[in-house]
Amino acid sequence: MKLEGRDYRTIWPDADGRRVHVIDQTLLPHRFSVVTLASAQEAARAIADMVVRGAPLIGVTGAYGLALAAADDASDAALEAAYQRLFATRPTAINLRWALDRVRARLLAAPLAERRALAYAEAARIADEDAAACEAIGAHGAELIYAAAARNPGRPLNILTHCNAGWLATVDWGTALAPIYKAARAGVPLHVWVDETRPRNQGASLTAFELAGEGVPHTVIADNAGGHLMQHGLVDLVIVGSDRTTRVGDVCNKIGTYLKALAAQDNGVPFYVALPGSTVDWRISDGLRDIPIEERNAREVTHIRGLCEDGEIREVRLTHAHARAANFAFDVTPALYVTGLITERGLCQANEEGLSGLFPELAKA
Amino acid sequence: MKLEGRDYRTIWPDADGRRVHVIDQTLLPHRFSVVTLASAQEAARAIADMVVRGAPLIGVTGAYGLALAAADDASDAALEAAYQRLFATRPTAINLRWALDRVRARLLAAPLAERRALAYAEAARIADEDAAACEAIGAHGAELIYAAAARNPGRPLNILTHCNAGWLATVDWGTALAPIYKAARAGVPLHVWVDETRPRNQGASLTAFELAGEGVPHTVIADNAGGHLMQHGLVDLVIVGSDRTTRVGDVCNKIGTYLKALAAQDNGVPFYVALPGSTVDWRISDGLRDIPIEERNAREVTHIRGLCEDGEIREVRLTHAHARAANFAFDVTPALYVTGLITERGLCQANEEGLSGLFPELAKA
Repeated sequence: MKLEGRDYRTIWPDADGRRVHVIDQTLLPHRFSVVTLASAQEAARAIADMVVRGAPLIGVTGAYGLALAAADDASDAALEAAYQRLFATRPTAINLRWALDRVRARLLAAPLAERRALAYAEAARIADEDAAACEAIGAHGAELIYAAAARNPGRPLNILTHCNAGWLATVDWGTALAPIYKAARAGVPLHVWVDETRPRNQGASLTAFELAGEGVPHTVIADNAGGHLMQHGLVDLVIVGSDRTTRVGDVCNKIGTYLKALAAQDNGVPFYVALPGSTVDWRISDGLRDIPIEERNAREVTHIRGLCEDGEIREVRLTHAHARAANFAFDVTPALYVTGLITERGLCQANEEGLSGLFPELAKA
Repeated sequence: MKLEGRDYRTIWPDADGRRVHVIDQTLLPHRFSVVTLASAQEAARAIADMVVRGAPLIGVTGAYGLALAAADDASDAALEAAYQRLFATRPTAINLRWALDRVRARLLAAPLAERRALAYAEAARIADEDAAACEAIGAHGAELIYAAAARNPGRPLNILTHCNAGWLATVDWGTALAPIYKAARAGVPLHVWVDETRPRNQGASLTAFELAGEGVPHTVIADNAGGHLMQHGLVDLVIVGSDRTTRVGDVCNKIGTYLKALAAQDNGVPFYVALPGSTVDWRISDGLRDIPIEERNAREVTHIRGLCEDGEIREVRLTHAHARAANFAFDVTPALYVTGLITERGLCQANEEGLSGLFPELAKA
């Protein structure tokens, strides 16, 4: 997507056919910096240090990590060592394992001399597939926006989103933001309310930055504000992403999503969730009971990083010195509160019939 | 209430009988600093800059502001100018106007020579009445906590609160926190979930600080977390304050209160609002339609202040340089979602019968 008028993906190979470039997301929105990965070790460090984040992007970075390894030494032993090193960075990220498995299987089946070229081609294919899936989510979701805009002519459509389900979390386009980018590029006048998304502030730091790059009008709000906006008719549509979706359509997404779904329900605002089919966990039917919720470091609540007037990025403490904090990273929005799901294969109801109708081969497995 | 073992109120007259001291709440929880107000202008600035905040404390500060004005020049014209200056500081809180009206009426009815002494006496009376009302709210609300604790023996009771409706928002005791202090001092084991309350973080900075001073166990959470906690049975009771209450029991309180009320409703968690009768606006029956919501500076959303490792309090920017932000300070929770009201005259239902039953003389006026 666009950043200062130039098109970017979050990861791309260098012209030398060997090294790989990524955007350093730890410095956003304050500094835009491209990091060059020259080895599998550097790719592993980029994942571990959250220079890249977002499950799809982590997977693609892992795939390119194996390609970098193959460029150095394409032997079975070297590839296996690189696989283990890359896998150990974020062992719970499902896309990482999936992408590493896919590239490794392809390389081990090929002659040594072809592995390097194969590895880069496979990593590029995974990246392209992810971008295509996100663009398809965008195209399907944009239909909702066109319809809502047609119902409200003569004014910009107000869309609220939570956290960052944008192109920075994927390779390109994003999930929840993809329909917004599609509609904005098609000329639909719209405005996005950006939940800042405490405690890690991915909305304020990443979503707002993305929207600025694409020239989409947006306003950052405290996470507390969405209900008030909906009560006063200032939100036409909510679109969020999903980290895991149950087979019946419960949505596990960034903490606070559930509160916005309740407010949407209370005020008759459509609440949509954009997700690639790969986030559906077909084994699970009760999201509240069966999805474990990650608890992260309390320091993400008690402290925050930002840009000081002197140009330094610093961390400040927000609480008294001995304050205890809890940091649940996700919550579950029961399917009941979800108006519909936006997938790469089209829209569906947030229920088992809807999801299995779009993904019959996955629902059966 | 207690701070490092010493008893404080939030506002008190100096021994010189003229100046007035307040705790500078903008520096909390990092520094404890007492500010001296020497004129109506300084009182107005203290309100506008949120050196003092919280509807009851704003009202008392306004009253002392008129006393400071009377100490300078007790003429009708000077008092009127001071009234207007003080009144213009904060539009939403009803107590400010109420306190200013009360002092002004008393002064204008008195001979010029008596006005100064009358003004200080009236301001002190308002302060004492507020402290007594808050303590009574605490006693009535504590009954709810005793009952809830009796239903859940053998474990600490979990109470969630939003923003700061503690003694720092009043003269002493607080409103929403008064029942908690009463119950904790009576030995009921309890634990408070403290919504940090973006954008100004009054929960993380003030409520947690207050609770630490009184030795009440507490955990700071992002505003996004309360719904998740309620879904998992981790909240027994919600108690919040109110900046303005309609005659039918709609509650205008810090932005985000409404979202917690929705989550409480969805999970069967009792949702109580603690308020002095003075916050009831008897002229208004539809809170959503008729209560103007203050919009504050966007910078409170895009920037945040905290303590750096080097001991300096610094402001950091959270968003990209040109980010627009909206900063609605309050929202309205319809009476429908309020389990009950806790007032200085006892508990009542959040409806016209409940309120007018407790405050018949005000309801009629």
